[in-house]
Amino acid sequence: MNGAQALLKTLADAGIEVCFTNPGTSEMHFVAALDTEPRMRAVLALFEGVATGAADGYARMAGKPAATLLHLGCGLGNGLANLHNARKGKVPVLNIVGDHATHHVQYDAQLQSDIETVARNVSPQFVRTSASTAALCQDAVDAIAACMGPPGGVATLVLPADVSWGPGGVPQACTPPPAAPAAPPERVQAIAQALAASGRKTAFLLGTRALRAGLLEPLSRIAQHTGARLLAEVFPARMERGAGLPHVERIAYLAELASVQLTGVEHLVLVDAKSPVSFFAYPGKKSDLLPAGCQLHTLAAADEDVAASVQRLLQAVGAQAAAPLLQAPRRPDRPQGKFTADKVCKAIGHLLPERAIIVDEAQTSGIMLAMFTAGSPRHDVLALTGGAIGQALPCAVGAAIACPERKVLALSGDGSAMYTLQALWTMAREKLDVVTVIFNNGSYAILNVELQRVGAAGAGKKAHDQLDIGTPALDFVRLAGGMGVAATRATTTEGFTAALEHALRTPGPHLIEAVVPPTLTGLKLRVLPHLLGSLARLPRPLAAALKRSIAP
Amino acid sequence: MNGAQALLKTLADAGIEVCFTNPGTSEMHFVAALDTEPRMRAVLALFEGVATGAADGYARMAGKPAATLLHLGCGLGNGLANLHNARKGKVPVLNIVGDHATHHVQYDAQLQSDIETVARNVSPQFVRTSASTAALCQDAVDAIAACMGPPGGVATLVLPADVSWGPGGVPQACTPPPAAPAAPPERVQAIAQALAASGRKTAFLLGTRALRAGLLEPLSRIAQHTGARLLAEVFPARMERGAGLPHVERIAYLAELASVQLTGVEHLVLVDAKSPVSFFAYPGKKSDLLPAGCQLHTLAAADEDVAASVQRLLQAVGAQAAAPLLQAPRRPDRPQGKFTADKVCKAIGHLLPERAIIVDEAQTSGIMLAMFTAGSPRHDVLALTGGAIGQALPCAVGAAIACPERKVLALSGDGSAMYTLQALWTMAREKLDVVTVIFNNGSYAILNVELQRVGAAGAGKKAHDQLDIGTPALDFVRLAGGMGVAATRATTTEGFTAALEHALRTPGPHLIEAVVPPTLTGLKLRVLPHLLGSLARLPRPLAAALKRSIAP
Repeated sequence: MNGAQALLKTLADAGIEVCFTNPGTSEMHFVAALDTEPRMRAVLALFEGVATGAADGYARMAGKPAATLLHLGCGLGNGLANLHNARKGKVPVLNIVGDHATHHVQYDAQLQSDIETVARNVSPQFVRTSASTAALCQDAVDAIAACMGPPGGVATLVLPADVSWGPGGVPQACTPPPAAPAAPPERVQAIAQALAASGRKTAFLLGTRALRAGLLEPLSRIAQHTGARLLAEVFPARMERGAGLPHVERIAYLAELASVQLTGVEHLVLVDAKSPVSFFAYPGKKSDLLPAGCQLHTLAAADEDVAASVQRLLQAVGAQAAAPLLQAPRRPDRPQGKFTADKVCKAIGHLLPERAIIVDEAQTSGIMLAMFTAGSPRHDVLALTGGAIGQALPCAVGAAIACPERKVLALSGDGSAMYTLQALWTMAREKLDVVTVIFNNGSYAILNVELQRVGAAGAGKKAHDQLDIGTPALDFVRLAGGMGVAATRATTTEGFTAALEHALRTPGPHLIEAVVPPTLTGLKLRVLPHLLGSLARLPRPLAAALKRSIAP
Repeated sequence: MNGAQALLKTLADAGIEVCFTNPGTSEMHFVAALDTEPRMRAVLALFEGVATGAADGYARMAGKPAATLLHLGCGLGNGLANLHNARKGKVPVLNIVGDHATHHVQYDAQLQSDIETVARNVSPQFVRTSASTAALCQDAVDAIAACMGPPGGVATLVLPADVSWGPGGVPQACTPPPAAPAAPPERVQAIAQALAASGRKTAFLLGTRALRAGLLEPLSRIAQHTGARLLAEVFPARMERGAGLPHVERIAYLAELASVQLTGVEHLVLVDAKSPVSFFAYPGKKSDLLPAGCQLHTLAAADEDVAASVQRLLQAVGAQAAAPLLQAPRRPDRPQGKFTADKVCKAIGHLLPERAIIVDEAQTSGIMLAMFTAGSPRHDVLALTGGAIGQALPCAVGAAIACPERKVLALSGDGSAMYTLQALWTMAREKLDVVTVIFNNGSYAILNVELQRVGAAGAGKKAHDQLDIGTPALDFVRLAGGMGVAATRATTTEGFTAALEHALRTPGPHLIEAVVPPTLTGLKLRVLPHLLGSLARLPRPLAAALKRSIAP
């Protein structure tokens, strides 16, 4: 058994059954070994960013890692942005990066580069170049353990060609990870006391592992019992929501709005989350969004047992019998009238199928999505954890492979979609049930907002040209067709809704290009109602504070 | 003057007049400052790999660097592969990578990552995070000096948002680089003596700076005078060739062929080149291609003055009066008959306009290109210096911006093209005179060859599926149309030739999709004539040796 064959058996034995690939010559023995391991499914991508984004999406939904197969430092570089998203989302991904044979490295051939230095950016937990075929499978087992965590993350195993082709590979078995600790009693008590003293001024900030149905329910009992609010991180890796589940309000991307959401919070309890900070820095504005004087508590950190910690708190506050506040089923009406991005969101809320998976990278265009889908059937939302755009379509590929029985909606801005559009080809090749909606507003619309927010002076035509991606206009119907994906262009509300209805009803991948005007053209007062609407259930005093904070 | 404004003035004063951009929020002040510096042209790309590849192509033709503008670590990651090509080609590129404001770093916001660690992979010469607005322009001057070399390379200047927006920027002037030394007399003498003793068993291996018309002429005099041969590195950054210039034979990509080319060489003289090694390692085969017993000489290293060194050798061997061997004008006939990749190459040779620039990433399909264009009008070839695919289209963008009066031909395999196809959009936006030819054979054809070469055992359907990119078929006409580039599909020799004729005659970007069968289906004896043909002027004994070496 050569190294590659033993490696594939080790992966499959560990439950890693999907590998998203973009191989080159140095990976040919791994590729050849695929036929020796029937449990391993290899999914080809035309670009590494698709492979890594798909591995991210797969793990978010499957709850276990996929592998990637990348070609030396350059392949890893191409995959870096979506690995960054996985890292920030604490999503387990096992990178296998082929390298030159160990004896070839000294010659500094064309593709030679320092792979490990690149890998460290996304794999702080584990980077190792396997030194021999004999050691390879133990290296793989160590890498798998490192990426599984908790906290989960990206592990990078560099696989020299001769380690792959050498004889004497010995598959290894993974050992179960050590149990993660739950919150110690004194910590739980401190939080329970804060809730008892000032429940209405307490908010829970929930990260990915707390945003699953099984935990939302006890968390909602706690909130109902104590008067506390439930907030979600701005970009969770995965969030279950919809009719029948407790509603959780996500922190807004715009720091101005997030600050308003957090106004009046005196105790913030982190559950697998980090203290909120603004996405970018802005001149003269605070990066730290924690209100002045607010006390920070951590119920469960990223490396702790979230479920057990929540159970301890539930008991400490005596909320076992409290009724959770569940979202009532409620769909928006079928949208009509002028076609805007909001109408797209409304149509999605109107039609969203049971158990759908929404990969949300709609940026400005998706601002109304949360509100319009709040009462739609139960669904998952996968968000842009690391802010590296070009995530939605690849992530949807992985989610669809993890959950073949569910419909996946990939929502993307036009600019974002163009980073990793090659994902469409993999959708077509694998006949994935993904409906991709592109909001084509011909603009890096969010940057028009940001240009104002950062107070950049003197911006003229050259600057604004840098945000214009409508010259020439991108035609996503042709682009999708070029990769074998059926596509429709929608320019009316009725047309979009009908196209979405058709796509959701028909198996296989579909793309709908929604030609819409930019949603946000600046933080103008006239868009305030939209912004407010997106912050579902905002109490009246906060709405007033928000209005004041945004008013020019 | 804020930091960004001062930086732009510093760049323009240094002659850096083009910036290939894909900005985000942290770069907004740089973007806003563009309007304050009329000398700076900002060229927007939809993907960072296009921006970096364009900067590479620009510098190869302009002989001076362009800047890139990238968005934090993820943007740099997306641009890494083509920066790798620039690094390996010793091409000057100045990366400007926006970063969070210095005070924001501590919060580990979503896009926070260690930019410098990624940059070190491609910028060993220079990575610096500018610490203050006051220091910024000196940092830029240092970065420019570092990337200019010699040897040229990639310099990365990390620009925190607050350094960009802060007041007190002071433009700085670059100082001329110190003169590079020429080969010392004793080294020149040693090479002259080797040439005198065994000129016919001596070969020059020429790197990029030796492959320019002004140096090829004295090098050819030396070769004619001494009987030595002129060889070129396998993937030079730029090579001038064609009718009226000395012909130089490029080392083959396949080590089996390269070894044959080097057979019998007893002295190899490197001129801005490195000793030849195989591209990849193969089980049981040597990586070092230098023939046993061959003595290696270095006339000029990468950091030395190539022109002065060649002049010294010319005088030392007394070849000033020798006539250089110039390539006679000779075009292949208009191709006819069965449509193959070779016919595409023949049509290019038949029609190539004066002073064209060919960016060659045609992989297996381009194997006959060198032979069919050898006697075409004088032109430049830009090759895949670092082996990181996805280079041709971006590099063509940069070459076209550097040389607006010249026609650029971007030749790409279908697989390669899909990494950075977004380059087409920039071609359309900037109305560049680029004719892109995609060899669509539905396959990672080179990997079919490599799968055999590495001796990978057991490859079955799953393995071969990994090399098949024809399921579903890519439609490059639609893909190009989706980005605003006029495109034609050619399925006959006559159709391709007519389409190329039209595209070369018509301003602006064009794409021709050549639907061809794979050229190499393995190292079979039946393709030997093609392989031999590509090694123009191979002496008969070498041809026989080649035949033996490849015969299964």
